[in-house]
Amino acid sequence: MIVAESVEDVRRGIAAPRAAGRSIALVPTMGALHEGHFSLIAAASARCDFVVVSIFVNPLQFGPGEDLSAYPRPREVDLAACEQRGVDVVFYPPAEVMYARQCLTAVHVTRLSEPMCGRDRPGHFAGVCTVVAKLLNIVQPDVAFFGAKDYQQAAIVRRMVLDLSFPVRIEVCPTVREPDGLAMSSRNAYLTDEQRRQATALIGSLRLGERMIRTQRPAPSPAAVEAAIRRHLADEAPGGEIDYVQLADPEELSDVERTDRGVVIALAVRFGRARLIDNIVVDRLPADR
Amino acid sequence: MIVAESVEDVRRGIAAPRAAGRSIALVPTMGALHEGHFSLIAAASARCDFVVVSIFVNPLQFGPGEDLSAYPRPREVDLAACEQRGVDVVFYPPAEVMYARQCLTAVHVTRLSEPMCGRDRPGHFAGVCTVVAKLLNIVQPDVAFFGAKDYQQAAIVRRMVLDLSFPVRIEVCPTVREPDGLAMSSRNAYLTDEQRRQATALIGSLRLGERMIRTQRPAPSPAAVEAAIRRHLADEAPGGEIDYVQLADPEELSDVERTDRGVVIALAVRFGRARLIDNIVVDRLPADR
Repeated sequence: MIVAESVEDVRRGIAAPRAAGRSIALVPTMGALHEGHFSLIAAASARCDFVVVSIFVNPLQFGPGEDLSAYPRPREVDLAACEQRGVDVVFYPPAEVMYARQCLTAVHVTRLSEPMCGRDRPGHFAGVCTVVAKLLNIVQPDVAFFGAKDYQQAAIVRRMVLDLSFPVRIEVCPTVREPDGLAMSSRNAYLTDEQRRQATALIGSLRLGERMIRTQRPAPSPAAVEAAIRRHLADEAPGGEIDYVQLADPEELSDVERTDRGVVIALAVRFGRARLIDNIVVDRLPADR
Repeated sequence: MIVAESVEDVRRGIAAPRAAGRSIALVPTMGALHEGHFSLIAAASARCDFVVVSIFVNPLQFGPGEDLSAYPRPREVDLAACEQRGVDVVFYPPAEVMYARQCLTAVHVTRLSEPMCGRDRPGHFAGVCTVVAKLLNIVQPDVAFFGAKDYQQAAIVRRMVLDLSFPVRIEVCPTVREPDGLAMSSRNAYLTDEQRRQATALIGSLRLGERMIRTQRPAPSPAAVEAAIRRHLADEAPGGEIDYVQLADPEELSDVERTDRGVVIALAVRFGRARLIDNIVVDRLPADR
């Protein structure tokens, strides 16, 4: 396994497999790798011949007062995990390599970046798009893998790739969960035991919303589902503070008027300094049942 | 010569030379090709094995009230000129191919986009960067060629490529001029005979500024040079309206305090609906002479 710290090193590491016509996968991460990341690496290995994992805690996507400095960076553990899973190249650049001079360029996807996490974290998705564009240009993968837990991020990256004609396919892999349903996240490490227990209410409330949409006829309104989710969270996770609960069009992320024509339910809840997000997609239901 | 209208067609046309390891040039244009463009095509042919010219009047870089609909589109003449000059592929997409769905993504370079033309044409350079990023992703050239007449554009594109690590070299070719010095531009066609005569004052005033910097000791202040240029334009081009006259750092495009340490002098003058730009770079002068 090659560990590359410079753009030149990573490009050199990929040159031979590319010239040999092997397909190249990129799994962009911020490190602190967990089973969610490992599922992306497994999907990448299954789909492509050569797997590149990038590990970079991207300052551009953190706002003032967010957890940039606290974000976990277990370098040796992450590298060992990649090695063990057959990763071919880890691109692990220091910040001064990624942003050798001040980055004056920003890539921004309007509309999709405005609701949900975009409201709570202004500039976050421009930071994500900018670094993803840069990583795509450095690695030039055939396929890049993202997790469905970051639903809005995946939708925005897909749109950026489409709008700017990046020569890459974006694959979004299912959220990996703890046995009790909590979505895997590097930020779960911030939780106290009591917060960890309450955090299962996120997926509980989403499943409650899904059940309402699947079973109630006529289908419940978005407002009714949102209210039920908020009640569930208030009851089951009194230590959490809700940032948002949003029902939206799965592609455009715009408000929906009905819940039975395909909808994503997304939410963000803060427990102390841990801001957790999760989501569930309820596909369009058959017209009569 | 292949004329490709879709992204798939242009990628197909380039696949074989790329696989054969031939170097690929991109010359992005808006058509209405003139000697300036032909010099870019010649530089591309000299430098690379395979030359792609894109012709696309990009709506994103025109503001309301600008000349998007009036902009000349002599398709057959342009294609014949490319054929004659040995261009391998012309990418000539209709707008609905480039922007099949509404383009929600924008690429923006702050600071460099703010002065000069950025002040008069808000959104213009974001439109340029967005379409150039898209063209680079579609064609994936080894080298892309731009003209020095659009000085600010070239500086911004260079910075975008650096910041986002696009795997391409940017070459900036010297401005091509009419015998009387007027910079070649598709927009010169808008000029009346009298405006055309007065338009030679643009390069006249720039050369005056250059002469002042090269000969006066102590070196003149930026304000003194600007004032002399404005006087020259007022005398020699009374039918023109000055948008700006700016002395700036050649790379950062920021204001300068001295004129003898390397400076670009750039200006924009309107004659009726023709907005003409030109510039001249005065390199850093030897400390003692």
